[in-house]
Amino acid sequence: MDNFFKPRSIALIGASKDKTKVGYNLWQKLKAYPGRLYPVNPRFGYQRVTDIKVRIDLAVVAIPARFVPGVLTDCVAKKVKAVIVISSGFAELGEAGVSLPPPPVPFLGPNCFGVANPSRRLDTTFAKVDPPPGNIGLISQSGALASYLFNWARQEHLGFSKFISLGNRLGLTENDFLEYLGNDSATKIIALYLESFADGLGWLKLASRISRKKPIIVLFGGQTPAGRLASQSHTASLSPAGAVVTAALNQSGCLQAKTITDFTNLLEVFSLEPELKDNDLAIVTNAGGPAILATDTASSLNLDVAKAVDVLGDAGAGRFSQALNEVLKDKTRDAYLIIITPQANTQIESTCRAIVRRFRSVKKPLIVSLLTGRLTETAGNILRQNRIATIELPQEAVTGLAALLQWHRGHKLDLYPARRSYPIHSPSGTLPEGRLTWKQAQSLIRRYQLPLVKTITLDQPVKPADFSWPVVLKADPSAGAHRTEAKAIYLNLKTGAAVKTAYRRLAQKFPLILAQPQLTAGHELFIGLKREPGWPVLLTLGGGGVYTELYRDLARVFLPVNEKLIANLLRQTRIGQIIFGYRNGVKLAVKAIVKLILNACQLIEEFQSVQELEINPAILTETSVTIVDLKITTFRDSP
Amino acid sequence: MDNFFKPRSIALIGASKDKTKVGYNLWQKLKAYPGRLYPVNPRFGYQRVTDIKVRIDLAVVAIPARFVPGVLTDCVAKKVKAVIVISSGFAELGEAGVSLPPPPVPFLGPNCFGVANPSRRLDTTFAKVDPPPGNIGLISQSGALASYLFNWARQEHLGFSKFISLGNRLGLTENDFLEYLGNDSATKIIALYLESFADGLGWLKLASRISRKKPIIVLFGGQTPAGRLASQSHTASLSPAGAVVTAALNQSGCLQAKTITDFTNLLEVFSLEPELKDNDLAIVTNAGGPAILATDTASSLNLDVAKAVDVLGDAGAGRFSQALNEVLKDKTRDAYLIIITPQANTQIESTCRAIVRRFRSVKKPLIVSLLTGRLTETAGNILRQNRIATIELPQEAVTGLAALLQWHRGHKLDLYPARRSYPIHSPSGTLPEGRLTWKQAQSLIRRYQLPLVKTITLDQPVKPADFSWPVVLKADPSAGAHRTEAKAIYLNLKTGAAVKTAYRRLAQKFPLILAQPQLTAGHELFIGLKREPGWPVLLTLGGGGVYTELYRDLARVFLPVNEKLIANLLRQTRIGQIIFGYRNGVKLAVKAIVKLILNACQLIEEFQSVQELEINPAILTETSVTIVDLKITTFRDSP
Repeated sequence: MDNFFKPRSIALIGASKDKTKVGYNLWQKLKAYPGRLYPVNPRFGYQRVTDIKVRIDLAVVAIPARFVPGVLTDCVAKKVKAVIVISSGFAELGEAGVSLPPPPVPFLGPNCFGVANPSRRLDTTFAKVDPPPGNIGLISQSGALASYLFNWARQEHLGFSKFISLGNRLGLTENDFLEYLGNDSATKIIALYLESFADGLGWLKLASRISRKKPIIVLFGGQTPAGRLASQSHTASLSPAGAVVTAALNQSGCLQAKTITDFTNLLEVFSLEPELKDNDLAIVTNAGGPAILATDTASSLNLDVAKAVDVLGDAGAGRFSQALNEVLKDKTRDAYLIIITPQANTQIESTCRAIVRRFRSVKKPLIVSLLTGRLTETAGNILRQNRIATIELPQEAVTGLAALLQWHRGHKLDLYPARRSYPIHSPSGTLPEGRLTWKQAQSLIRRYQLPLVKTITLDQPVKPADFSWPVVLKADPSAGAHRTEAKAIYLNLKTGAAVKTAYRRLAQKFPLILAQPQLTAGHELFIGLKREPGWPVLLTLGGGGVYTELYRDLARVFLPVNEKLIANLLRQTRIGQIIFGYRNGVKLAVKAIVKLILNACQLIEEFQSVQELEINPAILTETSVTIVDLKITTFRDSP
Repeated sequence: MDNFFKPRSIALIGASKDKTKVGYNLWQKLKAYPGRLYPVNPRFGYQRVTDIKVRIDLAVVAIPARFVPGVLTDCVAKKVKAVIVISSGFAELGEAGVSLPPPPVPFLGPNCFGVANPSRRLDTTFAKVDPPPGNIGLISQSGALASYLFNWARQEHLGFSKFISLGNRLGLTENDFLEYLGNDSATKIIALYLESFADGLGWLKLASRISRKKPIIVLFGGQTPAGRLASQSHTASLSPAGAVVTAALNQSGCLQAKTITDFTNLLEVFSLEPELKDNDLAIVTNAGGPAILATDTASSLNLDVAKAVDVLGDAGAGRFSQALNEVLKDKTRDAYLIIITPQANTQIESTCRAIVRRFRSVKKPLIVSLLTGRLTETAGNILRQNRIATIELPQEAVTGLAALLQWHRGHKLDLYPARRSYPIHSPSGTLPEGRLTWKQAQSLIRRYQLPLVKTITLDQPVKPADFSWPVVLKADPSAGAHRTEAKAIYLNLKTGAAVKTAYRRLAQKFPLILAQPQLTAGHELFIGLKREPGWPVLLTLGGGGVYTELYRDLARVFLPVNEKLIANLLRQTRIGQIIFGYRNGVKLAVKAIVKLILNACQLIEEFQSVQELEINPAILTETSVTIVDLKITTFRDSP
């Protein structure tokens, strides 16, 4: 891996003297690198990489796509240690792209933006602004976003330990570089822009391990259907659904940024600040309104503005300085926010110098909101040169502090993989393919002691006395339709005549019909278990019934699980708050609920051919849990 | 009112030669004003305002609070036409402040930041940066936020038609200036930073009228309990609860900004852009990642990225220009977003010039996301000078476009006041004071045909045969406690023994106990009606029962209402989607539900002594609606 970041010799294949070519820009940039550089171009420098006599650690390739396969063959022949292909025109174009076989050398790209190691003056990108050196390890699936970040970092006096652009990930992936940055002592925090995971399971294991020691901050693009399609033509990979992404990032202890602004704010705060250990925030401000907005934000993020000092609009540096002294006297504060707006008497620069002096020995987080735009570069730079975080908008500053606290308190809980609290045996027998009927599901489910409501399949004559009234009539789950939408369910039938009418209507559309008693009280729980390709089974819990889609009150985690993790997961949902006794209310049958969930997990872990198991709803009361509807789907061509 | 913005003569009371004083800054600023200026100061200029011989249109007062009452007496004697008191030290300090009687002249302040009319070079503030002229009418309850906005506007080449800082609002309020700006031809859009409403009902009437013709954009501070307290010491007024604020802004057709960034983005977009008439967005970009993030945001805000052209990272101005031509050929696009990141070949300035040329005659919204930070001021200024909106982050740009569309489509719906579809008669009889018992409520409720569940008050012997089983036992609503929290309710009792036990437990804590049948099926609806001081009655509808507080699935509107408005309000909630037949599901008893809500509204409008009427829940089925719990509270000292 060091061949990418500390090569002793670089061959630039496609070096160019034409200023409009990427090969020209790369050539100019790489000249600054203190290692040996060999330009390769039929009309300039070496004809082919094999013509170079010395050993080549790194080849950077920037030539039209159709020539790349031949050049790669040369690189292999030359035993080049590492290859980066900047050129585009491959899988990201779909059928129209040049096809590349997986190369037998450590390989980054194609369609990427290269790498950088700023402290060694290595930069194989064609960004307008060079990445400054610093402690952020950046991995990006977008080169353009990286060039934005290089410029941003330079302005904020921040920088990068290493930079990697992923491109199409034909060879190395984010996981390889994540591991490398995890072990890289120059990297304090790891930042990623991703649009998909090359290997979900690998990510879960690796990021869970690395996030124990370094913050991992992720911005994810392509989380809506429209964005996913746009992403596919950009990096030759389809984004996973937003729910999978969020579950994966949560469970691997990563912080997910919502927007580019959120991303850069988190990078700034985590790059510069010490740990935030509790939620007691002090504000010093010359501005009432912005401080109130910051207090609102703090309050909504569970930070407590224990002390706020308004020095008023006409304060000079002296009054600011006194207020800082006063606030610093109280050692119980955990973090500080200083807000400066530009008013006639505001001495912005000397106030900033006072801040630097006062906070020199304070080992707690401090952010300064300089609401001064481009009015003064100097004042901001006084702070930045002294490694004080500057975030112009106070609401965003507070959001950054809340993330620090979230990191301190929460990121090590429930990391992947959790302890598994049930055994996994070899499954006995095989399952039918596709959607199981209720009867098929029942015989499987009963082996796992899952409590099913008493159900009659109406494929033979039934007498009214066989029913428990009132009755529910519905299509068998093998029909697969959305129950409500397809009018596949009739609730609360109280007479034989009503049952007959419902039966007639259902029988017109569905081959198999079920009868169940109508349960008359209880809350509804959703339990979903799904094999996503490339991931462990994903467990989803939350509010059930018609409310599942309306309220989206759901929490997710990848298997394996145990009692404690299930309880934690339930507590993240609102139905979970009811289960555990909301506002002094009665607890529901917690033990039976958790047991049911664990048993369902055991089932899907034992039966690898089950693609999806969905219980919706299970009816919960203080003393019972009963499954009234479930769908089981197996793979059509099971392993 | 013109005396504030176009005074022919100004007296500055507290003009000062001491550079650290506000009176000095004001003096310097007012010198630039082309009207006549009279400094008043015992040691400099005129001793007292009454010493000035000519007529004074406007007095600006910046002296210590204790001298202000005397000076106001002078101003009245002098028949000054308008007075602004900048000085602080009054009601915002609570008891410690100097008390001022309501002055008998048009009066702004005290504790305010003055006014400005930039096109006439009038500026009575002490902001470091003068407010530039433009089309935004700004009213602010925070002077500091205004000084931030002045600086921001100068950088963005935007400006203000008028500016007003409200302060403590002893005289004029936001409503007076809102009316003025509504009629001011120089004002295209009205922006407000508020922490409370001086007169809620007045706001509703006025803003509803003005928002028909001009966008009103509001940033509201103090929406959390912590923020409300902070606000009180800032402007001598307590913020109303967030729910009231949001209801008031929605129903008066205003756009509510969530953050300072959101506020400035909305000001930029609405100040510069023409109307956005449909949701079809085109993106031209040299950056895949940022465009995907923008597409995600667009998709989540119901904008459709119908066309996205990625000119790739190595594009110069020529390729950008071609792409713009291509995109502009298709006349079906409604708005445009251009994203520029800084890469080696990016010709930022000539690309911006090309944008200006291509879009000169395009009368549709365009935003350029220059992800270039401070790399180039020139490029941004090329756009800004040509009145093209520049928002650096593409996700924020898209949010701005979505607000334009929201404005076009939605803001004129359901403005206050709606048509009232029920009569209001004089109430017959008076009500008891405080919390009504079930029996008291019942006799009132029945007059309005509100359907109550059959209820027995257990204040006399009752036989098991009198119950409908299963039974619910609960404390009478006059007890006032939170039912679940106080363990004041026992559900689903099936035996005489269970009823006895429950009764015994309840009787230990509550004087009056009710018995009702347990309803076994149905969805739960919350209906709240509340008199907030200074506002019309606020109606809240949404998910009921234990879910009310957990899901906060609530929508609100001020009375009066009618069938259509109730239906619109219900549709904003998720329970409403079920009522109207979610995903092809069965409709609930819509007519009966709407009728019940209207009747409850009639009740509270007729009985002015009712402070609060809360129905939670009403149980809804396909054929019925039944109130199982309700609380009615009347004012203790009724009018």
